[in-house]
Amino acid sequence: MTQSALPADPWLLTPGPLSTARATREAMLHDWGSWDAEFRTLTAGVRGALLAIAHGEASHVCVPVQGSGSFAVEATLGTLIPRSAKTLVLANGAYGKRIAEQLSVMGRACEVLDTGDYLPPEPAEVERRLRADPELGWVCVVHCETSSGILNPLAAIAEVVARCGRELIVDAMSSFAALPLDLRELPAAALIASANKCIEGVPGFGFALIRRERLAASAGQAHSLCLDLHAQWRYFERSGQWRYTPPTHVVAAAARALELYAQEGGQTGRLARYTRNAERLVAGMQALGFRPLLAPRWRSPIIVSFLVPGSARFDFERFYLAIKARGYVIYPGKLTSVDSFRIGVIGQLFDAQIDGVLAAVRSALDELDIADGAPDPAVVAAQPAF
Amino acid sequence: MTQSALPADPWLLTPGPLSTARATREAMLHDWGSWDAEFRTLTAGVRGALLAIAHGEASHVCVPVQGSGSFAVEATLGTLIPRSAKTLVLANGAYGKRIAEQLSVMGRACEVLDTGDYLPPEPAEVERRLRADPELGWVCVVHCETSSGILNPLAAIAEVVARCGRELIVDAMSSFAALPLDLRELPAAALIASANKCIEGVPGFGFALIRRERLAASAGQAHSLCLDLHAQWRYFERSGQWRYTPPTHVVAAAARALELYAQEGGQTGRLARYTRNAERLVAGMQALGFRPLLAPRWRSPIIVSFLVPGSARFDFERFYLAIKARGYVIYPGKLTSVDSFRIGVIGQLFDAQIDGVLAAVRSALDELDIADGAPDPAVVAAQPAF
Repeated sequence: MTQSALPADPWLLTPGPLSTARATREAMLHDWGSWDAEFRTLTAGVRGALLAIAHGEASHVCVPVQGSGSFAVEATLGTLIPRSAKTLVLANGAYGKRIAEQLSVMGRACEVLDTGDYLPPEPAEVERRLRADPELGWVCVVHCETSSGILNPLAAIAEVVARCGRELIVDAMSSFAALPLDLRELPAAALIASANKCIEGVPGFGFALIRRERLAASAGQAHSLCLDLHAQWRYFERSGQWRYTPPTHVVAAAARALELYAQEGGQTGRLARYTRNAERLVAGMQALGFRPLLAPRWRSPIIVSFLVPGSARFDFERFYLAIKARGYVIYPGKLTSVDSFRIGVIGQLFDAQIDGVLAAVRSALDELDIADGAPDPAVVAAQPAF
Repeated sequence: MTQSALPADPWLLTPGPLSTARATREAMLHDWGSWDAEFRTLTAGVRGALLAIAHGEASHVCVPVQGSGSFAVEATLGTLIPRSAKTLVLANGAYGKRIAEQLSVMGRACEVLDTGDYLPPEPAEVERRLRADPELGWVCVVHCETSSGILNPLAAIAEVVARCGRELIVDAMSSFAALPLDLRELPAAALIASANKCIEGVPGFGFALIRRERLAASAGQAHSLCLDLHAQWRYFERSGQWRYTPPTHVVAAAARALELYAQEGGQTGRLARYTRNAERLVAGMQALGFRPLLAPRWRSPIIVSFLVPGSARFDFERFYLAIKARGYVIYPGKLTSVDSFRIGVIGQLFDAQIDGVLAAVRSALDELDIADGAPDPAVVAAQPAF
């Protein structure tokens, strides 16, 4: 099958799965024996490259795990946090809440500092909570909470957690490989991400970069056999193989995606493109009257939330389908307090795709007979300043 | 990239990952939005086709879950078996033992009826255990235990379990879609399998066919958020979407693989080819002096174990590499009591590949300066008759 014989896929402007490079998908045209030496070499390369992205070679190890990013998060929580420990979860969206839910299902105590739909957690408040309860041994934070697109103040939170002598777990799902994350400086027990965010692989596994001594001390803590990252790590170290059948084709795609990542200049190159995409998108949407949910300082170059137009004729389903008919897939909002939608800027997106989605949004407004994207002034007025 | 431009992959004669059809892999050249209607349709089609293979439409539901087959097994155990229940696990190989290990990690009581490396569980002994302990509410059995390739006597065991009024969970990982499994007759609470066995998809998800009322009654029992098949099912039913990011490309490959499966004549067509493969393989290996581990009545048309040659010059690593150099990947043994190796017959294998691996085995013997595959007579004499 040649490139031209493929029907055109819509461009995915979502937080994942993403539009990937054709070369990445072509890596999946091969079959691999998971036990075989060549696949073990491939796996070792992927593990090493992921660790190097966050400069964790001296301190951390990379443990991939089958499943989605949430599987990697649950596996990390279950493996590292002792059954008797208590955790402070910083939540400002669906993914922070999911961490609390995971801890609850596995019967581990947690306290949630919930700042609502999109307000950032205040480092000073985190410190106050930690000082008030010495039993809070662990803190979990989501770096880029894609529910709103907010980039939480990770460095300041990590500094507070370290100063209080607690352990930090970072859900870096959608920021890893695009935003700078340096484990030589960031005091984190674990950073978690997945194959199909900013490394631009396809979905099928997640991974955690875990401080070696922490992981070595966590044998037998996990609530699950499959999600036991200590056992998974020992198996990688001993055999070079995944403990249970890996998604071989997805791993091969990740290996190829990581080569393309290096060719683009690694983290700085990718961040430059995503930042350009986000700025171009926001400028274009603002020109159409739309208003981003977040102030510039909290916005991420990953995904941007916009308030829905104030027009009574606005209907998200029709808006979505009109944009999709023009070849672009956007994402519904995930906020409880205001109606919004989201447009992602990660994946194989360049100026042409950003301009394309802006044109599609304009056409969709026309189709819905809506003059512009201006939100309801009352909704805007009700937004907290932060 | 054209077919001819691809370097030839070795043929995988393993229990999975398998050699897949090129059309199946080409389905992964597309990107899919997991939230999008087209992907929801794809998912619904896969769920429906898997359920229909075992004739479960009226009684069971199909719940796919991200990860390997073992993830699906753990998810099924954790979701269905009440925390206070006690389970009888029938083990004659690595996969039966893994079920016991999973139950142990999740803190659920179990008793293991371990018949060693490859002796089948006796239905009469199962009945005796169930009568002796009324607390044993659940029974788990592996249909085809690929550690040895044995096909366990599922129908007889299911009959005993039903007669005793207990619930049965069947790990049908490597038999599903090839061996006949009819949920209209087989009294099983759940059948579990994965995308990359006999439906010939690529690895990345597993699934369970679960009796609807059983699943409906299992809310809140799971030990894990990600591996909670009740929640996963409710989410599919409510939204048509996977609860967490699915391995989109792997699901698309499964959809294509299921089309090819139907074209081959479904279960009967596939079984006919695998049976032909197994018979051709065994006859050819016997002609080279090799001895299958199991008597014909216990052998599966999935994977066949052979005793290693008796020659002191035999070295599995060299044998494996000599065969691989000729384009075929075989599998090491997994038995504790005797040295063996395994050759799988599932996946896109036909007469040409079986003849090819036989020729490669002959050449490998020559390379190792071994006259034939005849095992050590003392090892043969020590095999139990069963």
